[in-house]
Amino acid sequence: MADNVDDKVTIVVCSGEYDKALAAFLFATIAASMGKEVIMFFTFWGLNVVKKPKGFPRTGPIFKRIFNLINRDNVNHLPLSRFNFMGLGRLIINLRMRKSKVANLQQLIEMARELGVKLLACTMAMDLMGLTPEDMIEGVDEYAGASTYFDIAFDSRVNLFI
Amino acid sequence: MADNVDDKVTIVVCSGEYDKALAAFLFATIAASMGKEVIMFFTFWGLNVVKKPKGFPRTGPIFKRIFNLINRDNVNHLPLSRFNFMGLGRLIINLRMRKSKVANLQQLIEMARELGVKLLACTMAMDLMGLTPEDMIEGVDEYAGASTYFDIAFDSRVNLFI
Amino acid sequence: MADNVDDKVTIVVCSGEYDKALAAFLFATIAASMGKEVIMFFTFWGLNVVKKPKGFPRTGPIFKRIFNLINRDNVNHLPLSRFNFMGLGRLIINLRMRKSKVANLQQLIEMARELGVKLLACTMAMDLMGLTPEDMIEGVDEYAGASTYFDIAFDSRVNLFI
Repeated sequence: MADNVDDKVTIVVCSGEYDKALAAFLFATIAASMGKEVIMFFTFWGLNVVKKPKGFPRTGPIFKRIFNLINRDNVNHLPLSRFNFMGLGRLIINLRMRKSKVANLQQLIEMARELGVKLLACTMAMDLMGLTPEDMIEGVDEYAGASTYFDIAFDSRVNLFI
Repeated sequence: MADNVDDKVTIVVCSGEYDKALAAFLFATIAASMGKEVIMFFTFWGLNVVKKPKGFPRTGPIFKRIFNLINRDNVNHLPLSRFNFMGLGRLIINLRMRKSKVANLQQLIEMARELGVKLLACTMAMDLMGLTPEDMIEGVDEYAGASTYFDIAFDSRVNLFI
Repeated sequence: MADNVDDKVTIVVCSGEYDKALAAFLFATIAASMGKEVIMFFTFWGLNVVKKPKGFPRTGPIFKRIFNLINRDNVNHLPLSRFNFMGLGRLIINLRMRKSKVANLQQLIEMARELGVKLLACTMAMDLMGLTPEDMIEGVDEYAGASTYFDIAFDSRVNLFI
């Protein structure tokens, strides 16, 4: 087991902001490219990072609809934690990233998948936020609880909470 | 010592938002129910999570009173990090939690205590924020410095900073 | 290697808020004063914590200038994550810190350096934010990528992400 420990990184993504998501995936892809096994666990607002874009919710219980209405963030549309300026901040960051030849979030998620990074979505938080597996992007590998996360984290050397 | 390491989780709670506090206690209770020893260390705004509700401060040094006036958050009243809407967001989350049969924050704190999760409040941050042990909820087990936290963290496998 | 592991702490500073920076440096200096080897890795907004104050950018590519214009935070000027009130919150915290004889951020950075805490600035995030080593404070020991961070983190017992 000791050998495994030295090869594993877990990253809990609890924030739904674009910059935090970028940081999470940059750290994940870099660790994966170093040959580490990387497991990301998306929970609470972090679920927005791996949520499909979709229209206004027209069906379902009223509170679920209200909640989905106010929380329309998704993989294509996440706010910055600072300097959001109605999306201008994100635009500038993306331009800077293109300039710096750093991949944007979508490309990073794709890259992470190709590098074998595992994406886990927290079932309890999904239930809380009224999300089903159909609401999530294809890349999600597994729907799991926090106990699954801890099983992996106890077997990992580096455990980050973003 | 190696055996202990595999059984311990520390969670630093540095944020005073309702959703972050929920995440912290959900992770803590789940780890505790898996038989892990869980130690939570509340510091900075995280102290609000284990602070008693109280009225306007009428005594004490002026800056302490101003600070307590602007920082009136407590275990019963914490903002969301996103979609706060003057408390509406929290209301909806609580309704969703009831629906999903997830315990609310107060119940989670109670549950954490019953499961033996240890709650430590950071003495230095308490001093900084003008808080005394009397300001904190009953569940706090110990008042300790960051050095106590590190002693425990160095003996733990999973160390999260929320 | 096992011996080293028990002596090392890494702290990723991904947030550029005054309170988060304070927490990071308080944890860092306390761990260092306990004889631990402490390595801080500044990335994204966390770079603002170790950025020199400077005037309005007058040269360079337009997007870099706009970005630097909206992101004028630096080691002397960081917002609070809560209760900022145009700097009043920070003023009160600093007054409380003086009262409590806790060092302020500048003193803490100085103290961290004296205690041998290593400050690493993330080169990729610097590139993204249009920053060069000249923009950073003197205390920065090394400019490194996330892979350097992981090399150290895999060799450390406590890894915090702030």
